[in-house]
Amino acid sequence: MDVREYIEANASGFFTALKDWLAIPSISGDPARRGDVRRSAEWLQAHLRETGFPLVEIWETGTQDAPGLPAVFAEWPAADPDAPTVVVYGHHDVQPVEPLDEWETAPFDPIEQGDRIIGRGASDDKGQVFFHTLGLKANLAASGATAPPVTIKMLVEGEEESGSPHFPQLLRDRRDRLACDAIVISDTTMWAADVPSLCTGMRGLTEAEVSLHGPSIDLHSGSFGGAVPNPLHAMASLLAGLHDEQNRVTLKGFYDGVVELTDEERELFARLPFDEAAWLETAGGSRAAFGEEGFTTLERVWARPTAEVNGMWGGHTGPGGKTIVPREAHAKVSFRLVAGQDPRAVQEAFAAYVDEHTPPGVEARVRFPSTGVRPCFSPIDSVGVRAARRAMERAFGTEVLFTREGGSGPEADLADILEAPLVFIAVGLDEDQIHAPNEKVEKPLLLKGAEAAAYLWDEFARGQESS
Amino acid sequence: MDVREYIEANASGFFTALKDWLAIPSISGDPARRGDVRRSAEWLQAHLRETGFPLVEIWETGTQDAPGLPAVFAEWPAADPDAPTVVVYGHHDVQPVEPLDEWETAPFDPIEQGDRIIGRGASDDKGQVFFHTLGLKANLAASGATAPPVTIKMLVEGEEESGSPHFPQLLRDRRDRLACDAIVISDTTMWAADVPSLCTGMRGLTEAEVSLHGPSIDLHSGSFGGAVPNPLHAMASLLAGLHDEQNRVTLKGFYDGVVELTDEERELFARLPFDEAAWLETAGGSRAAFGEEGFTTLERVWARPTAEVNGMWGGHTGPGGKTIVPREAHAKVSFRLVAGQDPRAVQEAFAAYVDEHTPPGVEARVRFPSTGVRPCFSPIDSVGVRAARRAMERAFGTEVLFTREGGSGPEADLADILEAPLVFIAVGLDEDQIHAPNEKVEKPLLLKGAEAAAYLWDEFARGQESS
Repeated sequence: MDVREYIEANASGFFTALKDWLAIPSISGDPARRGDVRRSAEWLQAHLRETGFPLVEIWETGTQDAPGLPAVFAEWPAADPDAPTVVVYGHHDVQPVEPLDEWETAPFDPIEQGDRIIGRGASDDKGQVFFHTLGLKANLAASGATAPPVTIKMLVEGEEESGSPHFPQLLRDRRDRLACDAIVISDTTMWAADVPSLCTGMRGLTEAEVSLHGPSIDLHSGSFGGAVPNPLHAMASLLAGLHDEQNRVTLKGFYDGVVELTDEERELFARLPFDEAAWLETAGGSRAAFGEEGFTTLERVWARPTAEVNGMWGGHTGPGGKTIVPREAHAKVSFRLVAGQDPRAVQEAFAAYVDEHTPPGVEARVRFPSTGVRPCFSPIDSVGVRAARRAMERAFGTEVLFTREGGSGPEADLADILEAPLVFIAVGLDEDQIHAPNEKVEKPLLLKGAEAAAYLWDEFARGQESS
Repeated sequence: MDVREYIEANASGFFTALKDWLAIPSISGDPARRGDVRRSAEWLQAHLRETGFPLVEIWETGTQDAPGLPAVFAEWPAADPDAPTVVVYGHHDVQPVEPLDEWETAPFDPIEQGDRIIGRGASDDKGQVFFHTLGLKANLAASGATAPPVTIKMLVEGEEESGSPHFPQLLRDRRDRLACDAIVISDTTMWAADVPSLCTGMRGLTEAEVSLHGPSIDLHSGSFGGAVPNPLHAMASLLAGLHDEQNRVTLKGFYDGVVELTDEERELFARLPFDEAAWLETAGGSRAAFGEEGFTTLERVWARPTAEVNGMWGGHTGPGGKTIVPREAHAKVSFRLVAGQDPRAVQEAFAAYVDEHTPPGVEARVRFPSTGVRPCFSPIDSVGVRAARRAMERAFGTEVLFTREGGSGPEADLADILEAPLVFIAVGLDEDQIHAPNEKVEKPLLLKGAEAAAYLWDEFARGQESS
C-alpha cells in the first residue's frame, strides 16, 4: 500500500476524528475557556498515543501563581540514531468567534459540507496540525517500518491566538528536549488550491495603546472651544503623521536594517497568478489597493513593514450631538515587522514619536501590552525548504512556488531559541475565513497536506545525507 | 416693599419651586425623554399661570408626522397700550447627563448645598428662565400695579439643546403673536460673581457627522495590512487637516465675510480682569491655552470661528488587542461661527473638504443633523443694551462691563425673524459646569438676576421714551 492509497483508505476516519477535536471550544483568549483549552490538549495527547508516538506529554506553561495554558509534546525516535531530528510546530487553541450572529453554522458544531469542513479551528490550526498524524501513519504503512526515517518531535501549543505569552519561556526551559535540525511549521497558507506553494517568512508584530489626556472633564465647546487643546485633534494629528506621502512609516529608524527583497524573490513573487481584483474581493470588497509606494500588493503584504491603526475612540460617540471638547482620546496601533526589525526598537521609536508629537497641554500615555512577535524568514535555497518543496511537488504533482505570510506567529522564537532553520509547509487558503465567522478548510487539501507530510520525512533524511 | 425686600422675602419659596422643575429630566436629545420634556413644559405653564400671566399656552412644534417638542408661551400686557413689548427667551430642555458616574449627586434629584443648587439645568437654562418670574412679581409688588410697565411675552422652548430644529418655523408661524420691540435673552453667563457684565453676541454653530467606509468586513491586519486603505488612517488625516499650522480652519472660504473685532472691542475685552491660569483651571484644569494665532484667549472663545472634533470612533475599542484593518470610522465635528458666517455655506465647504480628502477605496458619507445655528451680535450702544446695563448696575451696585458668549443658541433666528434687537441679561457663570457633570447655579446670583429683571422693565419703558 503506497502513501496515497493509505491516505484514501483512512480519510473518512481522519475527518471524523478531526471534527471531534474541533468541537472543543479551545479559545485561549477567553478566560472562561481555560478548561476547554485543557480538554483540547488532552484530546490531542490521547490521539497522538493512538497514532503510535511512544512518548506523549502535556507541558504546562507559566508559573504556579500565573499559570498559562498547556502545550502538547510528542516524540517518535527514528530507528537510525544518526537520522536528523525535526520539530513539528502547530497550535491547538483557536480565535474567538464573535460576531456570533454572522456564523451560518455553530462554530463548535463542525460539519462536513461538500468538500469542506466548517468550524472554528478547521484551518487555523487544528486541521493543519492533524494532517501530520495521517501523514506519518501513511509514511510507516508505505515503508513497512516501525519508526519514522527521522526523529519527529511534535510541539502543539495552546496560547498562539493570545500572542504566545509563555511560549518563549517554555522553549528555553525545554531546549534540550526540543533539540533538532529543523523546525516544520504548519500554520500558514498556500497560494491557491491549484497553485501549491511554500511560505518562506512571516511578519513580526508589536502592538501599542496610546491615550491622550486634556482637560479633566469634557468641556462645553461654546465656552472653551478654540482656546484649549482638544485631545481628539491631537490624536488625529498623531495618527495621521504615522505615514508620509509615500505611505512609508515615519517612526525614526523604522526601516533601519530591514532585509530588502532581492530581485530574484520579487521575480518569483511576480510569477504567481495574482488577480488583484479578485484579491480585493477577498479583502472585504475593498475598492482599491493602497500602500507603500514602489511595491506591489504582494510585496506590501508579505515583505514590507506597516503601521496600522486598529481602533480609536474618544468624546461623544452615542446618538445625537454633544458639542464638547472631550477630555481624552484613545487609539490601538499595531506594527507588522519584517526580517531585520526588532519589536522592542519599534516600541521605543513609537514612544519617542508620541512624546515628540504631543502638543503642549495634552498628556500622553503609551502602553505596550506585550514584548511583541519577531519576524522570521527562511532562505529558499536552504536544505529544509528544498526538501519540503520536493515533498509538496510529489503530493500535488505540479511545480511548487514560493510565498510569504503577512501574519505573525511565535515562529521566530522557535528558530532563535532552538537554533534551527524553519520550514513552512501548509495547505490553508487565504479564503478559509480564519479569525472570522464561518472558518472552513478544504478536505482534499488536508489530504494533500497529509501526503506531503508523509513524503517529507524521506526527503528530509535524503536531504541531510546529501548536504 | 421694594424690589429687593420682596425678593428676599420670597427667595426660599422660589428655590423650592425651581428644584421641583429641575427634577424633571427634560433631555431633548434623548428620544426616550420626550414625555419628560412635555411634563417640563406643563410644569412651567402651571407656574406662569400662578405667577399671574393672564395668558399661558403650550405651543407644539414640528408637524403631525414629525412632531417636535413643546415650547411655552405666556403674555402679560402692559396697562399702557403704547408701552413697548419685550419677548423674554429661554429654554426648558436640558443637556444629557453622561458620564453619569461622575455626578456627585443625582442629576435630577436637585439639592441646595450652601449657596448653590446642584442639578442638570440649574444654570442652563431653567434657573435663568425662572428668575424672571420672581423679578416680575417683585416689580409689581414694588410699584403696586396690576400689570407690568411693558408688555411681556415669555417664550421658553424645549429643543435648544438639540439645536432648535423647529424653532425658526415656530417663530415664522407665530410672528404676529411675537411682535415686539426687543428680545431679552437669559441663557448666557456674566464675567464673574463680583464682575457683572452683559453679553453682546453669541457664536453660531453647525454640526456634522462623517463616516468613512472601507472593506465590508474587518480584515486581518496580517493578511491585508499595508495593502488596502484603512478608514481610521483616512479619518485621522481628514480631521488632522482641518487646522493649519496657525490653528486656522482650512475649509475653503471659511473666513470670508467674518466681522472682525474692532480696536475698541478688543480694548474693552482687555479691560476685563482675565486671569488665564484661573481660566485654565475652570477649563477642567487644561494645562495650556491653545488656538488661532494672533488672538487672545477671550477673543478666540468669543469672536473667532472654530472647528472642533466632538467625538470619533472606529475599529476595536474594547479590552485587549485585535489586529484588524477596520471596516469603518466615524466622527462628529462641530463649527462655531461668528457674525458674517452662514452655517449652510460652512456645511457646503465641509462636504467639499471631505470629498476632496477621502482617498481612493474609501467611501465618505457626511450628514448634517440640522441646518445649524446662526451667530448673533448686539452693538453696545443700542437702546436695549443700555437699559439692561442700567438694570444690572442697580441690582449689583457696581459698573457693568461687556463680554460675548462662545456658545450658541437660536438667538439669531429670533432677531432675524422677529426683526427686533437682542439684549442678553444673565447671571450664569462659566464655572457652572453646564453640559458637564455636577451642573450648579449660585443662589445669590439668581436673586440678583431677579432683581435686575425687576428693574429692567422700568428701564425699558424709560429708554424707549427717551429714544
